[in-house]
Amino acid sequence: MHIRLFCIKNKEGDDAIIDNIERRKNMRSIRTDLAVEAREFYSVDGTEIPGVKTDNEEIDGISINRVHVLSPIGEERLGKPVGNYITLESMYIKERDPEFEERLSVQIAEEIKKMVSIDNKTNVLIVGLGNWNITPDSLGPKVVDRIMVTRHLLELMPEKVDERVRSVCAISPGVLGITGIETGEIIRGVVEKVDPDIVIAIDALASRRTDRIGVTIQLADTGINPGSGIGNKRMALNKETLGADTIAIGVPTVVYAHTIGRDTLKLLADSNIQMGGSAGFMDEGQLDGLLRQVLSQNMGDLVVTPKDVDIMIDNVSGIIADGINLAIHDNISLDEIRTFLH
Amino acid sequence: MHIRLFCIKNKEGDDAIIDNIERRKNMRSIRTDLAVEAREFYSVDGTEIPGVKTDNEEIDGISINRVHVLSPIGEERLGKPVGNYITLESMYIKERDPEFEERLSVQIAEEIKKMVSIDNKTNVLIVGLGNWNITPDSLGPKVVDRIMVTRHLLELMPEKVDERVRSVCAISPGVLGITGIETGEIIRGVVEKVDPDIVIAIDALASRRTDRIGVTIQLADTGINPGSGIGNKRMALNKETLGADTIAIGVPTVVYAHTIGRDTLKLLADSNIQMGGSAGFMDEGQLDGLLRQVLSQNMGDLVVTPKDVDIMIDNVSGIIADGINLAIHDNISLDEIRTFLH
Amino acid sequence: MHIRLFCIKNKEGDDAIIDNIERRKNMRSIRTDLAVEAREFYSVDGTEIPGVKTDNEEIDGISINRVHVLSPIGEERLGKPVGNYITLESMYIKERDPEFEERLSVQIAEEIKKMVSIDNKTNVLIVGLGNWNITPDSLGPKVVDRIMVTRHLLELMPEKVDERVRSVCAISPGVLGITGIETGEIIRGVVEKVDPDIVIAIDALASRRTDRIGVTIQLADTGINPGSGIGNKRMALNKETLGADTIAIGVPTVVYAHTIGRDTLKLLADSNIQMGGSAGFMDEGQLDGLLRQVLSQNMGDLVVTPKDVDIMIDNVSGIIADGINLAIHDNISLDEIRTFLH
Amino acid sequence: MHIRLFCIKNKEGDDAIIDNIERRKNMRSIRTDLAVEAREFYSVDGTEIPGVKTDNEEIDGISINRVHVLSPIGEERLGKPVGNYITLESMYIKERDPEFEERLSVQIAEEIKKMVSIDNKTNVLIVGLGNWNITPDSLGPKVVDRIMVTRHLLELMPEKVDERVRSVCAISPGVLGITGIETGEIIRGVVEKVDPDIVIAIDALASRRTDRIGVTIQLADTGINPGSGIGNKRMALNKETLGADTIAIGVPTVVYAHTIGRDTLKLLADSNIQMGGSAGFMDEGQLDGLLRQVLSQNMGDLVVTPKDVDIMIDNVSGIIADGINLAIHDNISLDEIRTFLH
Repeated sequence: MHIRLFCIKNKEGDDAIIDNIERRKNMRSIRTDLAVEAREFYSVDGTEIPGVKTDNEEIDGISINRVHVLSPIGEERLGKPVGNYITLESMYIKERDPEFEERLSVQIAEEIKKMVSIDNKTNVLIVGLGNWNITPDSLGPKVVDRIMVTRHLLELMPEKVDERVRSVCAISPGVLGITGIETGEIIRGVVEKVDPDIVIAIDALASRRTDRIGVTIQLADTGINPGSGIGNKRMALNKETLGADTIAIGVPTVVYAHTIGRDTLKLLADSNIQMGGSAGFMDEGQLDGLLRQVLSQNMGDLVVTPKDVDIMIDNVSGIIADGINLAIHDNISLDEIRTFLH
Repeated sequence: MHIRLFCIKNKEGDDAIIDNIERRKNMRSIRTDLAVEAREFYSVDGTEIPGVKTDNEEIDGISINRVHVLSPIGEERLGKPVGNYITLESMYIKERDPEFEERLSVQIAEEIKKMVSIDNKTNVLIVGLGNWNITPDSLGPKVVDRIMVTRHLLELMPEKVDERVRSVCAISPGVLGITGIETGEIIRGVVEKVDPDIVIAIDALASRRTDRIGVTIQLADTGINPGSGIGNKRMALNKETLGADTIAIGVPTVVYAHTIGRDTLKLLADSNIQMGGSAGFMDEGQLDGLLRQVLSQNMGDLVVTPKDVDIMIDNVSGIIADGINLAIHDNISLDEIRTFLH
Repeated sequence: MHIRLFCIKNKEGDDAIIDNIERRKNMRSIRTDLAVEAREFYSVDGTEIPGVKTDNEEIDGISINRVHVLSPIGEERLGKPVGNYITLESMYIKERDPEFEERLSVQIAEEIKKMVSIDNKTNVLIVGLGNWNITPDSLGPKVVDRIMVTRHLLELMPEKVDERVRSVCAISPGVLGITGIETGEIIRGVVEKVDPDIVIAIDALASRRTDRIGVTIQLADTGINPGSGIGNKRMALNKETLGADTIAIGVPTVVYAHTIGRDTLKLLADSNIQMGGSAGFMDEGQLDGLLRQVLSQNMGDLVVTPKDVDIMIDNVSGIIADGINLAIHDNISLDEIRTFLH
Repeated sequence: MHIRLFCIKNKEGDDAIIDNIERRKNMRSIRTDLAVEAREFYSVDGTEIPGVKTDNEEIDGISINRVHVLSPIGEERLGKPVGNYITLESMYIKERDPEFEERLSVQIAEEIKKMVSIDNKTNVLIVGLGNWNITPDSLGPKVVDRIMVTRHLLELMPEKVDERVRSVCAISPGVLGITGIETGEIIRGVVEKVDPDIVIAIDALASRRTDRIGVTIQLADTGINPGSGIGNKRMALNKETLGADTIAIGVPTVVYAHTIGRDTLKLLADSNIQMGGSAGFMDEGQLDGLLRQVLSQNMGDLVVTPKDVDIMIDNVSGIIADGINLAIHDNISLDEIRTFLH
């Protein structure tokens, strides 16, 4: 009897199992990778949360939201480490207007340069997280494909390289289900050899709201911190674990179907439309109970995403890569970047 | 001012516009490509609809549902032309067990052979519908990639080809947004040159229920009939338009997010849980009105799909292609098919 | 005994067989798709061939060679139908400088506009020839991917489309080994439905000289004419067979290894280096005999190509697509094209 | 003036530069990654080279050649480190017969098991070398895609995994031009975290003879040793550098065009056909001089490869991956492997 061999059906299967564990754990609280959503969630009426400061501005059609977690109190309230979380958002991304995309790349570069200081001695490592075989999870590897990689040139033939060019290397480490190795371990192994001053990690995110898919870009100077529960095998990527300033850049590419169902119910309950009064008073726990009744179990593995997610990811990964390229190198143009990459 | 050039942003954009027109039209009634769902919808209590006969059986872990639309009355009631609609369904598809997949391919072959008669004079044209650039829409082209194409061999070197092999040719015509040509026109153009006896068209479908995604395979001997409303530019693919027996094979790969929201509400209203009595009495129109209030407009472009839809489509397209290959050729084995295709 | 099923091993296998038949036929004479090479071959000393006129110019780093076959005498001497054959060539293509690439696209557009007259009533069909699964053969389908397809927009929503935009549709019909259908038949079937005024067909070519790979672009207003031998199943694509002005655009992506071996020997014999006098007097027949002795049979299936042919084809297909887009539409910019396509 | 930025045009460009340096260095001696070719080269008449032992056998249509480098003398003579070099070769690979492919996978597994001892405590790391963007260089990453990766399952849920399954992890580290990091550094970084007992590295090779392309598989228990010249930045992958038994598996996918030209001349000179006597006495140096005269400089960047190299690599990478999977795990079948991977 060799049936146990088949308990794990496929490379993605096992990843899904681990995802599920995490998801189940999060079900009671909120399921979002975005600080701006956490803040919305914990401060429905918009009042400031203690230890958290937020501001907003609008530049050239881009809404910029900055959530600053200032103290351990804020960290505890928001469930996000002390640090700065910048969200760039614009419906114009969907227009695919090259001029707007350039403005957005420039803004991303500005925000990165505010977070870390880069000069011509700085070594940067770009890390593209996620599974390249699963379209909505392939953002990170796609960004890495468009990064100006220069470290080897500066080492092997420094005299031939323009002085505006800084040292950049890049990897897409894959996911646990593809490599069998904790992604954090691979990254730490590479970091120990490369010894970068700055790490920039890019990842596809899940959000709570479908209208954020593909139009929201979050930058955080805290790196990636997957929660600190016992048994959490997913290693954080931050200054502490990597020994380098770590910026995380993420874009929501899916909303879990469970979230949609849940939020539909919540909206319904809140607005109390035609439903009688009692629904309005459901708390989170009641909502989840209700949801389990009306939705099939399967929902957990399902995501809501644009039908043309392949194209959306292609597009936004180009914008982010351009932003990173502009941020790192000194005063180079998008045309120069294109020529280099081509 | 050249702004009008940009009114249409991209190849997919225009397709989406046309999709939207269709979707909006369908919003009032039901949104499904599956006869079995239409039947469920119009006969909630399971009683037979006049002019429609159904039966079910289970073979080797595969549920087989057959909906026979017998008369114009049934056609009108169900919104599906007179003909036979076979649905094979099994949760085992997700297990990816090669033995089960072979059984399923054999069952698909059996159903095809019941629908049309194939001998060694028969010419078959396989048509892979859908957009190969959009993962959930790429089922048809993926099936075509695994079809044993033989027509040219039988024409150019008949003496070298085994007598069990029949004449098969295959195209993936693309979609309107990619070619600028009605898909039906391309197919008709090719049919006029090739003059097939049988056309088998494969397409990705939308269903109403998430638990059908990737586990349901529908075969219909009526071809593809996209509705008969005025202004419908999408041409039917059937005996009348192509002059050949036409089988349609489809697999649901997405559920429109709008459908999910709607069905969640309906389940809620029906079960009337904690919500007070009045919701139970909402009719379809009220539901849609409610839905428009609680869901954002954006929902229309969003789909619910497994996160690993790339892998699911790879898998099920292989099963269908094997079924077609087994159905057409005389007594050949899957090993022989693999050797040929490789 | 079912062994005959396997006589044809794979989709490409059969194509290779047919290729081989053609190649063997051509072995005695020259193996090139380029008029400029045919001319070099038949006029080693550079004197004008009767019925053939050539001129050269250089514009912005692009060498432009024009071979005009003026009469049946020229046609017979050169083995190319009466018409105009333009070759653009520049080593700068390898530099991947966006500015140079734009100049080259503009020059391609100029040459197309000299060959055919296009106004806002003109319907153009773009045909991407070749096998998308075989990198050096995928040029045509890659160009089609970057064509501004507009025909359906002008039909469905003419009022929303800029008046500079003309009607363009596009197909990649595949190859005989993929579809089982003569490519020419598919194209004729589509042409009968679409009724274009102009057809532009793009194909990967074989050349005789490795230094032409990826840096030479040939345009011909005679379409594609694969030889006129008995038994040639490959249909010509030209005004006669399609009923529309037909432009062929091609880029050499490979040299057959046989050609390399042969040309090495010939160069050797001609230069007579260290080899003794007799070799200098070998004629074509002797060369081929010699070659058969020193080269393995396998050589016939092998090609010489850059190791990074994937990247080279990506690049040059973009340049050609831009050239076509610029030629057809009235006074639009590359930026507008990018926005449309994106 | 920012011209220096552009000195390096693209990701592959810089790799090509380094390749060229290596190639030029090797031009005087022989250009092969295959021990069997080195042996042929240094022992034209087939006599044994001191310190080297060879034997041949034929099993089920597979020719097996074993070159054993026994001592430093053999190492110096052959230019290959002390160790065992096994070459499996069969023209049947081209037939794509699943039964033969299975036999070949089984034979690969046998040879691996002779080289290293594997039990249920063994940890294996599979490394797929090469550039996934360049078809003839993508063999290693393609093999990794089909490896049964199990390490994380055995760590996270050992009780659910069949006892025949051993711990396997796998990475495709990319190439210097893609990551900016020496491939050997990435691998060492990962090895330090994973601490494998055995490393198996797979790479595409260059051979001297076109008839070896795609039909020869070399296994070596010496790992990968890229030469020991001063300035060689390419780190060896072997027991010394990785601290684990290291097996290298390679398949020739190209022959450098320069090699072809050179070998054609050599064959010609050796056979002295019709050319007069003197050519027969050319030494290696004269040959290279001659070659430089008759071949263009460009030849250096060109490779000879089958036109359908994409398909060839798909095929042979599946055979190798199956061989590795069979070698590592205890008594599992190809069907079980397929189910797992699917």
